Amino acid sequence: MLFSKLFIPILKNNPSEAVIKSHQLMLRTGMIKQSSAGIYSWLPLGFKVMKKIEQIVREEQDRIGAQEILMPTIQSSEIWKESGRYEDYGEEMLRIKDRQNREMLYGPTNEELITDIFRTSVKSYKSLPQLLYHIQWKFRDELRPRFGIMRCREFYMKDAYSFDLSDEEANFSYNKFFLSYLRTFQRLELSAIPMAADTGPIGGNLSHEFVILAETGESKIYSDKRIFDVNSNKTKLEKNSLNELREQYEKFYAVTDEKFNKSEFEKNVPEQYRLHTKGIEVGHIFYFGDKYSKPMNASVDFQGKKEFVKMGSYGVGVSRLVGAIIEAKYDEKNEIMNWPISVSPYECAIIPLINKNDNSNLEKAHNIYKYLNEKEVDAIIDDADENFSSKIKKFNLIGIPFQIMIGKKSEGNLLEFNEIGKKTQNLPIEDIAKIIINKKKIN
Amino acid sequence: MLFSKLFIPILKNNPSEAVIKSHQLMLRTGMIKQSSAGIYSWLPLGFKVMKKIEQIVREEQDRIGAQEILMPTIQSSEIWKESGRYEDYGEEMLRIKDRQNREMLYGPTNEELITDIFRTSVKSYKSLPQLLYHIQWKFRDELRPRFGIMRCREFYMKDAYSFDLSDEEANFSYNKFFLSYLRTFQRLELSAIPMAADTGPIGGNLSHEFVILAETGESKIYSDKRIFDVNSNKTKLEKNSLNELREQYEKFYAVTDEKFNKSEFEKNVPEQYRLHTKGIEVGHIFYFGDKYSKPMNASVDFQGKKEFVKMGSYGVGVSRLVGAIIEAKYDEKNEIMNWPISVSPYECAIIPLINKNDNSNLEKAHNIYKYLNEKEVDAIIDDADENFSSKIKKFNLIGIPFQIMIGKKSEGNLLEFNEIGKKTQNLPIEDIAKIIINKKKIN
Repeated sequence: MLFSKLFIPILKNNPSEAVIKSHQLMLRTGMIKQSSAGIYSWLPLGFKVMKKIEQIVREEQDRIGAQEILMPTIQSSEIWKESGRYEDYGEEMLRIKDRQNREMLYGPTNEELITDIFRTSVKSYKSLPQLLYHIQWKFRDELRPRFGIMRCREFYMKDAYSFDLSDEEANFSYNKFFLSYLRTFQRLELSAIPMAADTGPIGGNLSHEFVILAETGESKIYSDKRIFDVNSNKTKLEKNSLNELREQYEKFYAVTDEKFNKSEFEKNVPEQYRLHTKGIEVGHIFYFGDKYSKPMNASVDFQGKKEFVKMGSYGVGVSRLVGAIIEAKYDEKNEIMNWPISVSPYECAIIPLINKNDNSNLEKAHNIYKYLNEKEVDAIIDDADENFSSKIKKFNLIGIPFQIMIGKKSEGNLLEFNEIGKKTQNLPIEDIAKIIINKKKIN
Repeated sequence: MLFSKLFIPILKNNPSEAVIKSHQLMLRTGMIKQSSAGIYSWLPLGFKVMKKIEQIVREEQDRIGAQEILMPTIQSSEIWKESGRYEDYGEEMLRIKDRQNREMLYGPTNEELITDIFRTSVKSYKSLPQLLYHIQWKFRDELRPRFGIMRCREFYMKDAYSFDLSDEEANFSYNKFFLSYLRTFQRLELSAIPMAADTGPIGGNLSHEFVILAETGESKIYSDKRIFDVNSNKTKLEKNSLNELREQYEKFYAVTDEKFNKSEFEKNVPEQYRLHTKGIEVGHIFYFGDKYSKPMNASVDFQGKKEFVKMGSYGVGVSRLVGAIIEAKYDEKNEIMNWPISVSPYECAIIPLINKNDNSNLEKAHNIYKYLNEKEVDAIIDDADENFSSKIKKFNLIGIPFQIMIGKKSEGNLLEFNEIGKKTQNLPIEDIAKIIINKKKIN
């Protein structure tokens, strides 16, 4: 793949409208382009990253047995009137009248629609549990959209819903998503902490926000540092194992400011472990019982009785994660981005020094590309007619984790090879391929 | 995968609101569920088929060097005022006012938005050609949505756009998409004929509709039967080879009724080759030069002069193709569907006869599933407690192309095996796997 053939409109300088680093980087490397306030187009580089994140989110949903469906973006107001949220939701809901003057809306979330699908499809408790998810565009008409795709109006989200017969079974479903979120963020190389959270406009009584630490975050967080040592690597998809995982996390104080209580924090967290910083919410899970199933009459037959199903909902901001990863990984001062290889737009950049009347470096680059391609390493050749240092600067910004430089310093078999943030090495292509493949395996 | 665990709400009878067979079949097999007039949710079975179609469409776009991006669903009215289409488009455009009272709309197509992206990103002719595509939800506020997803309001579409310096280069881009569409429909086992067509509200002077024959089709078509013998198997992605392909097709008369001329038809087509029937449009390609680039000022520098880029657009209805394949492949009288294996929701149905107090058939089914899974055959076990003939009937409707029956007739190693529409055979599992794998390779 040649850089000159790709649609990657790079900007030389930080655009003035961008104040946080993910917004700056995404505009500068041509990942996105704003089309109107809080609404963006995804250009090839940004699109590739978002699709890779989407696929990881999907695989981790499938792994806990959730089934993928797809609900439409435009909904009728009627189901929202049934649940009682049509009036409550306020101006963030984009309300629409169609040509027949019917009240429609662009879905900001999907509890009502999924409940409607469930109640017309499932009649017996034997069909429970059901875990359903979809990945779809949503719209929230923010008064002041800002920070690029971090606080925009049209955004891409995975939302899942669980249906169970009892609170106990519903807790099992809740815990499955708890695990799947930990696994998802781990594959994205993000350390996300589950924090007790308010349930907000969706309502309910059990809720966790998954938050990553970032100075530019919008939420204040208070936690016990020891929570970072908990992990789900040994957790199995079984009731007991999942309960243990939850207990391990809940042993440590970790809340957002809505739930913060100073004396509790100080009582429960020894001083040396206290962490008070900012974070970015990347996922949110809720349990809300029969909040929707009751007013919307979604029930199953159980032992001759009608039981309203117990529901939970589980969201991950897929487009938002692109920005969140940048906030976590971008070294703004040195202008160096480093994508986790699992979501990087390419896996290796091949950067030849191009002299006029001498194609030998470009030819070498093509041979290296071919070799890496056979090993299923997704590489890109920078065939642009620029000086070496501008090329390196550009690729530091694009953030592909590995670079091969073909210039004066390459001698014989040895290539100048750089893993972003590490020292340059001179290595044969075979060794380089091994390093890259090895890195992919870990993820 | 066990049938009982999946969210597949089967209906016993044809729902009265469905008059064409794709609509009937999709509701009966729980592929979709209507959420409001002309707006559908895609349940797991339908979702899987649509995603497989999407992937084939994507691969054939990538193969001609088109790059994937993603434009938003909600657009500002301003760019439509620039092109002059905001007033022209009529009531099919879903017009929206946001909370700031700005005029927005749900994109029915994307010529304006892509032109805006292009003009702010590309300055030099050296960056041409550019072929960009996206696969996104669109909305057309049909006055009378009907026929399920064949004529609905919210639909999923691939639309691509080409940008070139000259008419001649633009013709090359046009021909690349011409080839990619033939390849796409071939992989979907549809014989789609490219027909000279009107350019409609998008405008322009060169256009082909890709139409598949179907009695339930909405377009009348007139063609020379010999056009079915033309194919693109030997065509290469080169100017001459692509021109030859176009010429081979254009030798034969093939038009929709808007372009029909009786005397021309009779003059050009010998009587024995005349075909007059109905068809379904599954793709449409247009060349319209500077229709948008001129009013929207999308130009490149070329030899010191400003040249408006020459554009084309290329659409495939991804969600519509699900219905189109059903219209082409569903034997309504015998209630037998037969999905092309390339897009079938599963590749093989394992149907055990389940007796009370005897799990041996179900156990056999699990072993077969395991064997097929190792061979990367995507199978499903029908573990429902129904009689054999209802199960077969159900799976004939679902349309998975291969069935393995485990009942009284299976003896020793031999399994009752059925390729839909062919005779039942008794074969060992190894031979069955080979037949399925072989069928997958052909596609």
